[in-house]
Amino acid sequence: MSDPAPPGEFELIRRYFAPLAVGFPGAFNLLDDAAVLAPSLGHELVVTTDALIEGVHFLPDDPPDLIARKSLRVNLSDLAAKGARPRAYLLNLCLPPTATGAWIGSFARGLAKDQTAFGIHLIGGDTCKTPGPLTLAITAMGEVMEGAMIRRSGARPGDDLWVTGTIGDAALGLAVRRNALPGAGPKDRKFLVERYRCPEPRVAIGHRLVGVASAGMDVSDGLVQDLGHICSVSRVGAVVQAALVPLSAPVRRAVERDPGRFFDVVGGGDDYEILFTAPPQLGATVLDFAAAADVQVTRIGSIVAGSGVSVLDGAGQEMRIERAGFRHF
Amino acid sequence: MSDPAPPGEFELIRRYFAPLAVGFPGAFNLLDDAAVLAPSLGHELVVTTDALIEGVHFLPDDPPDLIARKSLRVNLSDLAAKGARPRAYLLNLCLPPTATGAWIGSFARGLAKDQTAFGIHLIGGDTCKTPGPLTLAITAMGEVMEGAMIRRSGARPGDDLWVTGTIGDAALGLAVRRNALPGAGPKDRKFLVERYRCPEPRVAIGHRLVGVASAGMDVSDGLVQDLGHICSVSRVGAVVQAALVPLSAPVRRAVERDPGRFFDVVGGGDDYEILFTAPPQLGATVLDFAAAADVQVTRIGSIVAGSGVSVLDGAGQEMRIERAGFRHF
Repeated sequence: MSDPAPPGEFELIRRYFAPLAVGFPGAFNLLDDAAVLAPSLGHELVVTTDALIEGVHFLPDDPPDLIARKSLRVNLSDLAAKGARPRAYLLNLCLPPTATGAWIGSFARGLAKDQTAFGIHLIGGDTCKTPGPLTLAITAMGEVMEGAMIRRSGARPGDDLWVTGTIGDAALGLAVRRNALPGAGPKDRKFLVERYRCPEPRVAIGHRLVGVASAGMDVSDGLVQDLGHICSVSRVGAVVQAALVPLSAPVRRAVERDPGRFFDVVGGGDDYEILFTAPPQLGATVLDFAAAADVQVTRIGSIVAGSGVSVLDGAGQEMRIERAGFRHF
Repeated sequence: MSDPAPPGEFELIRRYFAPLAVGFPGAFNLLDDAAVLAPSLGHELVVTTDALIEGVHFLPDDPPDLIARKSLRVNLSDLAAKGARPRAYLLNLCLPPTATGAWIGSFARGLAKDQTAFGIHLIGGDTCKTPGPLTLAITAMGEVMEGAMIRRSGARPGDDLWVTGTIGDAALGLAVRRNALPGAGPKDRKFLVERYRCPEPRVAIGHRLVGVASAGMDVSDGLVQDLGHICSVSRVGAVVQAALVPLSAPVRRAVERDPGRFFDVVGGGDDYEILFTAPPQLGATVLDFAAAADVQVTRIGSIVAGSGVSVLDGAGQEMRIERAGFRHF
């Protein structure tokens, strides 16, 4: 049995995407040219967008439902890091001629699954045909209390530096996919690839950090590089204790086999964990809120006067980080 | 002298795009991961998005500043047709390795020019590298009074059918670009290509149509097809008088040379004029508001009970429209 060809543009929207707009009145069942939305009283909208390209951000044989979920999740991760609760999203989907109805169906089911998990709706977008690789962009909208978005710019010397979850899983997951992580057992390989394909946006804790975090962003291009952005915009420096960086058991085993892997861990991208700073007197509050959200948080260092990011080894010596992080150009 | 290579990702944002965010505090000079915005009191946001792909929506040798302006204008046209005043937009820009700094600079200058013309700011986006054709998506946000967005669904039998500007210029402009409009003189060719490359979004009249237009949308995929959408969602039919469809002098000359061109006029896309319906008793109001906005409007027919679109010739006979309009699939 061969895959059916994708249906026409309007049928494609009706069949696969309009069901994702049900429950959001301002989406008009995707039957209009635009959507309407307004933030709740006393709130404002937080807007972020990310494009993903086959062969660049995901691999051609990645399962379509996971491509969909990752695309949505990287945007949800941005909203969470900014302290916003997710509300709605738009999807631009540029399909190559090889895209089948089965592929699109699986993609839409991936979106449906995560819409339920994270309380967000598709409210608009467009589909078109591309002679190039499959390309998609998601624009996500959330809301925060007026003036309360967690910025990159608020870190102050003396603040603690925190990170959610574990770092480096996705970088090593990509290495597994490229057959570049010898020595890892099948269970570790599976865990790491899953973390690469389907990151966990920390939506449960993001909005709780409003009023607690002095600065924050999600780790998408590598811990050291992204921390460098917070430092540069906040005009401060940061010191990270390498031994405190939270590692999953599979990553810990990979680093034990090859200590040089640590540079991939703090330099690789795609973590989608929240990196944030908070005054030390709010440390107990951070831990309380993390427990309430059921999200692991770890203090990995401090903000200092000056500039730049230093990573210290167990002996307090500065490590030379050779790989600065992912850049598109 | 060869074109310089494009600068790195962050430098590219700093040099070309951050200046486009000046004047919109919630854009944080593009130094954060997200932007914030809120509609004015008593208003809500209207959100629309369109992707454009080189070789599909524009030609590889189209000037970059005009590609930028067209990309923004097609979204502004959607906002205007919905009765919304433009506020802000996001840009996803996927660049092939061949994109030069000069290309990006010209593209950004095109955006700057139209930002000033239409009172809108860039507030976010992302840039990435693609192995495929240049692909970009713009998500535009405007605002309307709560509940006042002009929908596709409000057309009622007896309503007049109106359109702004002239129809068919862009379709014949594309024909010129493809060397498929023999007989047109150089001035006509220039006019038509300019209308194809740089449509005129009817922002000046859009927001004035709130409370006047019973339904509306912009003509992007062809007059007959787009009118069909209004009819289908409103559960009505429409009758268009072919002789009333407003034509520019170059299009009128092309149709006189070859009457079959009329099917390209009402079937071709890329007009970006507003098609709207209004009760006949508001006809004088429509004309007053159009004069105040300095936008030409023309009554081209009526909404009727039933379904589907009929186009009548000068003798009142139904014309068979052979080309239904642009479809991506």
